[in-house]
Amino acid sequence: LSSKLPHIGTTIFTVMSRMAAEEGAINLSQGYPGFGADPLLLDLVGKYTREGYNQYAPMAGIPQLRKVLAEKTKLTQGYFPDPELEVTIVSGATEAIFSAVTAIVRSGDEVLVLEPAYDSYEPAITLNGGTPVYVPLRASDFSVDWEKVSAAISSKTRAILVNSPHNPSGYVWTEGDLEQLAALVRNRDIYVVSDEVYEHITFDGIRHISLGAHPELKSKTFVCGSFGKTFHVTGWKIGYCIAPENLTAEFRKVHQYVTFSTVTPIQYALAEYLIHPDRYLSIPGFYERKRDVFVKGLEKTGLHFSPSQGSFFQLASYGHLSQVSDRVLAERMTRELKVACIPTSVFYSDKRDDKIIRFCFAKEEAELQEALRRLGGLG
Amino acid sequence: LSSKLPHIGTTIFTVMSRMAAEEGAINLSQGYPGFGADPLLLDLVGKYTREGYNQYAPMAGIPQLRKVLAEKTKLTQGYFPDPELEVTIVSGATEAIFSAVTAIVRSGDEVLVLEPAYDSYEPAITLNGGTPVYVPLRASDFSVDWEKVSAAISSKTRAILVNSPHNPSGYVWTEGDLEQLAALVRNRDIYVVSDEVYEHITFDGIRHISLGAHPELKSKTFVCGSFGKTFHVTGWKIGYCIAPENLTAEFRKVHQYVTFSTVTPIQYALAEYLIHPDRYLSIPGFYERKRDVFVKGLEKTGLHFSPSQGSFFQLASYGHLSQVSDRVLAERMTRELKVACIPTSVFYSDKRDDKIIRFCFAKEEAELQEALRRLGGLG
Ligand SMILES: CSCCC(=O)C(=O)O
Ligand SMILES: CSCCC(=O)C(=O)O
Repeated sequence: LSSKLPHIGTTIFTVMSRMAAEEGAINLSQGYPGFGADPLLLDLVGKYTREGYNQYAPMAGIPQLRKVLAEKTKLTQGYFPDPELEVTIVSGATEAIFSAVTAIVRSGDEVLVLEPAYDSYEPAITLNGGTPVYVPLRASDFSVDWEKVSAAISSKTRAILVNSPHNPSGYVWTEGDLEQLAALVRNRDIYVVSDEVYEHITFDGIRHISLGAHPELKSKTFVCGSFGKTFHVTGWKIGYCIAPENLTAEFRKVHQYVTFSTVTPIQYALAEYLIHPDRYLSIPGFYERKRDVFVKGLEKTGLHFSPSQGSFFQLASYGHLSQVSDRVLAERMTRELKVACIPTSVFYSDKRDDKIIRFCFAKEEAELQEALRRLGGLG
Repeated sequence: LSSKLPHIGTTIFTVMSRMAAEEGAINLSQGYPGFGADPLLLDLVGKYTREGYNQYAPMAGIPQLRKVLAEKTKLTQGYFPDPELEVTIVSGATEAIFSAVTAIVRSGDEVLVLEPAYDSYEPAITLNGGTPVYVPLRASDFSVDWEKVSAAISSKTRAILVNSPHNPSGYVWTEGDLEQLAALVRNRDIYVVSDEVYEHITFDGIRHISLGAHPELKSKTFVCGSFGKTFHVTGWKIGYCIAPENLTAEFRKVHQYVTFSTVTPIQYALAEYLIHPDRYLSIPGFYERKRDVFVKGLEKTGLHFSPSQGSFFQLASYGHLSQVSDRVLAERMTRELKVACIPTSVFYSDKRDDKIIRFCFAKEEAELQEALRRLGGLG
């Protein structure tokens, strides 16, 4: 059997998490919380399971969850998507991105990808016969170089895949970024797939602005979000796609045959849990404390960095300390210092090695402190 | 936005379930159980959720569930797939089928589909640039006409999609069917995607033989199964794919970027629950009683049928009673008799109307009896 994805191996997140487990290292590699979710939310899953909410949910998601998600969107982003026609519940943001790309990308299409980029974008494009066209973010601060994006557009450009707050850099798009993107897709037949899974994790008063909240962009954008990232339950694999009616119609045709529907008792639990806005409005503060603890400790390690603006990731440069490749460094740190991280070369199509590693700080403070103590061994 | 699936609307299962709800009809349309699952299994989900098993599961599934699934396969099918290299846990059998088709079908490939066929096969093929080539099952008993299958093979044939126990007809493949398929794919570069979601629901001593258990077919087959169908929890969206190492490697490359992984606490719950074989060995008897109740009552309605051999579906012909189309009949039955069913024309590429409707008998006996009483109004 010849492979449709010959270049694909095991994702780095699996590789590093496995190595961390084998080595008994603190796992700051794969992005998932090292602490529990709200017991109230967990109990709701038990309740709805026991009460018998265990058969197929409606293909687009239960109406209650779509409605409360629309209300959250109104409260945090200032617009109210139509729960019936513009909101779809799916089996994780990975499925949202895959189904959105599948809905619009055809053989021969080009899709712009800003890199460093999350590793699921490229296979989604390639499996649909598209060609990813990579545009580097600015090396200085991972902001978008809009002239480069503009220069990369061709008559074949069908879509652009964007991500803010950005994994791995934490860069959060400004209003100016949204305006620039709006100008680029204006009068062009280009759609936008927007990975916004860290929408609730921003710091220092910076606010995430959804592309769905932009008067022009909203008509061309699939907003992909994740309940798992927001509520510390990445293993529940439940996310959503918000898009205008015509895009949602195409999105659902795909979703209907990719997974059909998403775990019913978890949908009921989230629908009830989301009724209280403080449950998501408290998330930025919760993570900002962790970010603060982590960057404070990181200052003492000799690594170079700018504090993350959003997401639960922190990048750090080590090129002034060592010239080993980032993959070798990540492996050594895991085996010798017992702290696992992600080498960022994997986020580049050409595996460019800028001697930068990524840490996930979604961990208990005590675990972060212990990791920082071990990282003292770097200098 | 022009559609990649212009011919696709809302699936008939959604349409009929919605109509049943609006009309307050007994819903024998969409295939899902009308009774609860084992409280023990439900409690296990609550337990693992509360105990904090809520972060990403390994991409291929937790080792414990893969192992116990391999043991079930050994016990029921006589072979032990390698849990590490040949078993993958996925987000429902629909995803298993989609990811298997995506792993092997390229633009220009032909894929044989025996019809009547479940409605997710065609979009999976089409989205991958393949062309479905339809081969009708025998009108008499829905057995496979192997000469017709053989005649449909061309140099472009890349795969064949098969399903036993068969939805909608209940036909269960014989050893002879497996031999015929083995002969057809022998020395040809043709793979098999085998939808076996009703593996544990067979009657009258008939046994389901997995394609994975066949010495030749096993090397070319993706066996797609469903925990949701077997344990009365269709809304949990958890299934599996068993395939030889080289096919599993390609399957996982796709799964890794379609959903990445599947709900963690449910994986732990199933892993513990499956340790006791009686929990699946008791399923055929459980459903045979329902099938018996249903066909006994159906005899009095004037509809024509042969008792289902497997699955939880029963077909019935009404052409001798009425000449309305099967869609109109299904709608009228839902609105007037308050019993919803599925018109089988939707399972055919040409929407051929043989005046046959499908009932799902996965319901409480009392509900089946009440539905049968209402169907008395047909004659
Ligand atoms: C699906 S595993 C990867 C989790 C994640 O988003 C990350 O670590 O970047
Ligand atoms: C995914 S809804 C359809 C359920 C089913 O398998 C059927 O009714 O045939």
